[in-house]
Amino acid sequence: MPVSRDATIEITAFNWVPEGAYGLVRDLRVRWALEEIGQPYRVRLLHAGQPRPEGYYSEQPFGQVPTYHDGAVHLFESGAILIHIGEKDERLLPRDQAARARAIGWLFAALNSVEPAVAELFRIDLFCADTNWAPLRRPSATENVQTRLQRLSDWLGEQEWLEGQFTVGDIMMVTVLRFLRHTDLVAAHPNLAAYLARAEARPAFQAALADQMAGFASETSKVPA
Amino acid sequence: MPVSRDATIEITAFNWVPEGAYGLVRDLRVRWALEEIGQPYRVRLLHAGQPRPEGYYSEQPFGQVPTYHDGAVHLFESGAILIHIGEKDERLLPRDQAARARAIGWLFAALNSVEPAVAELFRIDLFCADTNWAPLRRPSATENVQTRLQRLSDWLGEQEWLEGQFTVGDIMMVTVLRFLRHTDLVAAHPNLAAYLARAEARPAFQAALADQMAGFASETSKVPA
Repeated sequence: MPVSRDATIEITAFNWVPEGAYGLVRDLRVRWALEEIGQPYRVRLLHAGQPRPEGYYSEQPFGQVPTYHDGAVHLFESGAILIHIGEKDERLLPRDQAARARAIGWLFAALNSVEPAVAELFRIDLFCADTNWAPLRRPSATENVQTRLQRLSDWLGEQEWLEGQFTVGDIMMVTVLRFLRHTDLVAAHPNLAAYLARAEARPAFQAALADQMAGFASETSKVPA
Repeated sequence: MPVSRDATIEITAFNWVPEGAYGLVRDLRVRWALEEIGQPYRVRLLHAGQPRPEGYYSEQPFGQVPTYHDGAVHLFESGAILIHIGEKDERLLPRDQAARARAIGWLFAALNSVEPAVAELFRIDLFCADTNWAPLRRPSATENVQTRLQRLSDWLGEQEWLEGQFTVGDIMMVTVLRFLRHTDLVAAHPNLAAYLARAEARPAFQAALADQMAGFASETSKVPA
């Protein structure tokens, strides 16, 4: 079990988030990658509903999770952390230069060509539904997601993974698509739905998800007043 | 002059975009990095107002620019391309593992912790001003940008660059901040304004910008009907 109190790798995660964010917080990406290669890690829990601990902004300038510490390497941003972990093991990032570049390309595509549209719709539905602008914005925000999913579906076709073998690019894309679970937008593309299910069935994903959820059920988790 | 018809590296860019996007299209990032290390490249121009050429979606699944071709390496996503170029030269990406990881962390922070808020405000002001939702959304979108800029300003302090030496992380952050040029949001932070000016004064940036602008003035550029 990669979560281990004595591990040298440490990540930060939340011990409380709103229920709508369960299984979506970005430390899931890092946990999943570490589970795929059997790399032990320990977790330092923060509370999303409370001020950050003193000094946390010098560790993570935007106050988010996860951060990652591994010897001299001190990192933030889940994308950067996945590349760092991928470099440890070719099961996550191929050694061949051209294939490696493609995997990194897909990791960025997930974050920068798919996630912005997906995150906007997620924000509208989960956090801004009661604002005056969200209901008006929702149709065009939905169309933006549909356009990106169509392109992604066209690319994937009948492939198992985005680019040959499973890579950190797939970890990133799958965790982005999960932000649409409250909609039927992914289901409209059977190949994307199957891709998502195939990835979520991996034992490493299941272990990562269980460990994130365990953090929300820990003794230190309290809902803020 | 890195733009050279015989270069082995090829990128794609647009020969026409709306004037509001002059000097902001994402090939600028790649041109700038290549100029910093004196690496010649050639440019294949597309027209942002017309359908993509046949086959372009198999080269760039989302139809965007830039793409990048260098021998066996075929890439899309400006972030992935900057990392690939950075790996050629320590003037863009330090060789030391911990410093390298930090530079990549800042590149992701620019794209994923700053650009989403910035891009939303840019979209509202430049492309969606006439919609029913944009004026209602603008105040909270502006606040989101202000929050991120405050954090960034706090981090930067009196440093010249984000993390010791100039890196691909600075190229990415500066090109993101440029999307706010139609506002006074960056000017509200004198250290960020000075950082932006310092970066834009680099000869490599000036050359990259001039070459992007030259593409818009080329004989093949025509405004769509």
